Amino acid sequence: MNPTLEIFSQGEEIVTGQTVDTNAAWLSQKAVACGFTVTRHTAVGDKLDDLIVLLQDISQRADCCICTGGLGPTSDDLTAEAVAYAFNMPLEFDEIAFEQISRFFAQRNRAMPESNRKQAMLPQGAERIDNEWGTAPGFSLTYGRCWFAFLPGVPLEMKHLFQDRVLPKLSIRFLLQPGQLITIKTLGLGESAIQERINSIEIPAQVQLGFRAGADDVQTKLLFPFDYPETAISTLVAMIANQLGDYVFAIDGMGEITGDLAFEIDKLMTIGNSHTLAVLETASQGLLAAKCVGSEWLISAIYEQSTARLGQNLIAEANTEYLITTAKAIAVDIQKTSGADFVLVQLYAGNNKTLHDKDKSIVLYNILLTGNNFYQSIHSIAGPIKRKQNQAALMTLDLLRRYLQHKAMNH
Amino acid sequence: MNPTLEIFSQGEEIVTGQTVDTNAAWLSQKAVACGFTVTRHTAVGDKLDDLIVLLQDISQRADCCICTGGLGPTSDDLTAEAVAYAFNMPLEFDEIAFEQISRFFAQRNRAMPESNRKQAMLPQGAERIDNEWGTAPGFSLTYGRCWFAFLPGVPLEMKHLFQDRVLPKLSIRFLLQPGQLITIKTLGLGESAIQERINSIEIPAQVQLGFRAGADDVQTKLLFPFDYPETAISTLVAMIANQLGDYVFAIDGMGEITGDLAFEIDKLMTIGNSHTLAVLETASQGLLAAKCVGSEWLISAIYEQSTARLGQNLIAEANTEYLITTAKAIAVDIQKTSGADFVLVQLYAGNNKTLHDKDKSIVLYNILLTGNNFYQSIHSIAGPIKRKQNQAALMTLDLLRRYLQHKAMNH
Repeated sequence: MNPTLEIFSQGEEIVTGQTVDTNAAWLSQKAVACGFTVTRHTAVGDKLDDLIVLLQDISQRADCCICTGGLGPTSDDLTAEAVAYAFNMPLEFDEIAFEQISRFFAQRNRAMPESNRKQAMLPQGAERIDNEWGTAPGFSLTYGRCWFAFLPGVPLEMKHLFQDRVLPKLSIRFLLQPGQLITIKTLGLGESAIQERINSIEIPAQVQLGFRAGADDVQTKLLFPFDYPETAISTLVAMIANQLGDYVFAIDGMGEITGDLAFEIDKLMTIGNSHTLAVLETASQGLLAAKCVGSEWLISAIYEQSTARLGQNLIAEANTEYLITTAKAIAVDIQKTSGADFVLVQLYAGNNKTLHDKDKSIVLYNILLTGNNFYQSIHSIAGPIKRKQNQAALMTLDLLRRYLQHKAMNH
Repeated sequence: MNPTLEIFSQGEEIVTGQTVDTNAAWLSQKAVACGFTVTRHTAVGDKLDDLIVLLQDISQRADCCICTGGLGPTSDDLTAEAVAYAFNMPLEFDEIAFEQISRFFAQRNRAMPESNRKQAMLPQGAERIDNEWGTAPGFSLTYGRCWFAFLPGVPLEMKHLFQDRVLPKLSIRFLLQPGQLITIKTLGLGESAIQERINSIEIPAQVQLGFRAGADDVQTKLLFPFDYPETAISTLVAMIANQLGDYVFAIDGMGEITGDLAFEIDKLMTIGNSHTLAVLETASQGLLAAKCVGSEWLISAIYEQSTARLGQNLIAEANTEYLITTAKAIAVDIQKTSGADFVLVQLYAGNNKTLHDKDKSIVLYNILLTGNNFYQSIHSIAGPIKRKQNQAALMTLDLLRRYLQHKAMNH
């Protein structure tokens, strides 16, 4: 049995819905990955009584609790006070915490407001969690059956403190038997199409299979139990990846660092001799270039709204052959003017109205030009305009990814 | 005193962190807007005992509770069952619910799986909430001091059911005295700069002042109590907006529909004779164009990485005058080739390395060309690369927004 863990978030901005509680999701993923069973998330506002009751409840219910928020300098930051009441651990002035807070201000040449002194008051007997990324130190303590860690709510500080200070403590305090999560990331296949393709593969009962369809990929997730043999993991993953074929753009959890499509293309573009790319976008309207932010290899990108300006009249009625021919001609043009090694051209049958109409699809035509070779792909894209825009950016980039992946494998 | 409301989300995907609970934030905002005090969010997984205990706790604690999730057809959807146990309301087959579910499948020419029959089992005495957007009907009931509404977790269905079916019931069941929330949206001023500017304005004690710094704007929020005089509201809002001057791009809550910066520019670009725009992006790398997705007026956008390709050598060391002169020359060029009414040109001192370095700033130079007139703005932008990209897109667009707003006011 895994130890149980709860997440507790404090703050009016969360209960009033001004802030979406992304901390809770982030912490839960980390906790599950290291072998906890997360049983509950709770968020409450800045009411001392609510906080006290909740802390007492959790101390009887969970093995571990990670709390975020309420450690700031202002009067509505009540977490330490609530702990003091709930667990009978009166607040004490912590000399070292105060020095750290003072140093934080001194290093930034700012005077420390008197209110920040409050952040050095910690519950008697709690262990300080040093915070070099902000002014609020965290602290940890055990009460009832539960080990609590209290962290600031600012995501950047919270993440640093959890990774660097809390995780090492968890692995000492708890017998953790984390499973191994493998995520196969694909683009262009829906959840049911994936299920159909892998139907014939027998998945052992101890292995949990799940799917997650996001805006930027569809993920097939395999959760293997603790100590599952490595060879059995790689065999099963390879079988599934094989069934999904070219649609797979990354496999996460097998040792290699993976990212989104642009991240994977970046890896492939910078192997050995690095290459350059120039792009013409239509339906994705700049989003393709935006996804590749900061890459050395994307040297230019053009967005053109009007089909006429691209020499394509009556594009809505145009047939596939005409569109492909036009896209090829544009690609050759861009190759000449940009001098890029690769050119991607994206056209679509339709116009602004088709894009806006969520009940209408567009047909996307992609051309990749490398040296003297053309590659092409055609996709039908449906949904609200922002979905069309995003899918268009991904589908055009994916043509390049497939080409680069094949090239890398054949070397 | 406002009635209290809790949000309760059910689902393993939430407690394991696979899904960020955006439903809770959305529902909280709606509940606050109609006059509830939201006291708590709780999320639990697919464990029947946890669900039962939680439902009983809430029934003693809150005046109202909105529950989402766990109404699906599969065995891990346990909400109705938990209600049956918690409140002693055994499940009963609901003829009408079953008909609705059957019709949902029939209209889509799909056979209804046997498992969906489960969704027609509702707690005895509960009131059905018809769902024409999906297969799971919701239901409402009173237990203890609390009125509960149970809704499916799919955001689209949940939102429709809340707006169309739950809201009308709430306003009958509860004495709601909603405040009026005014949001002043600005770009280019930080929270503390805003506070300084409005320091001299006396804000009545009953009016709650708050700030929210997001990626795309900084919002100054004023929450006026129920029945606060309209003239007093508009006077105070006008005073504050006046202090913030040109930085204000929209005021929400005063009747007019407002949106993000691109939305506001779209309004201004399509007043009377609509105009056209062509853009050259550097640091924002396509994101400026992407933000204007589907607009008729953005006719073309170019992204160029290399400063050399824009005729700017040694741009990193270049002085302001040189950069401004170059940007103007590029703008004139684009005006000629594109024929656009307005041309925006964005340059920056730095390169890809400066963009990637989160400890380094870039200086952004924007030029707007309208007919024969040039307008310019210069901004220093710091932070991680995605923040720089986003701020660059916003700051360049904002130069156009300020021009258009002035023009509209002087007509």
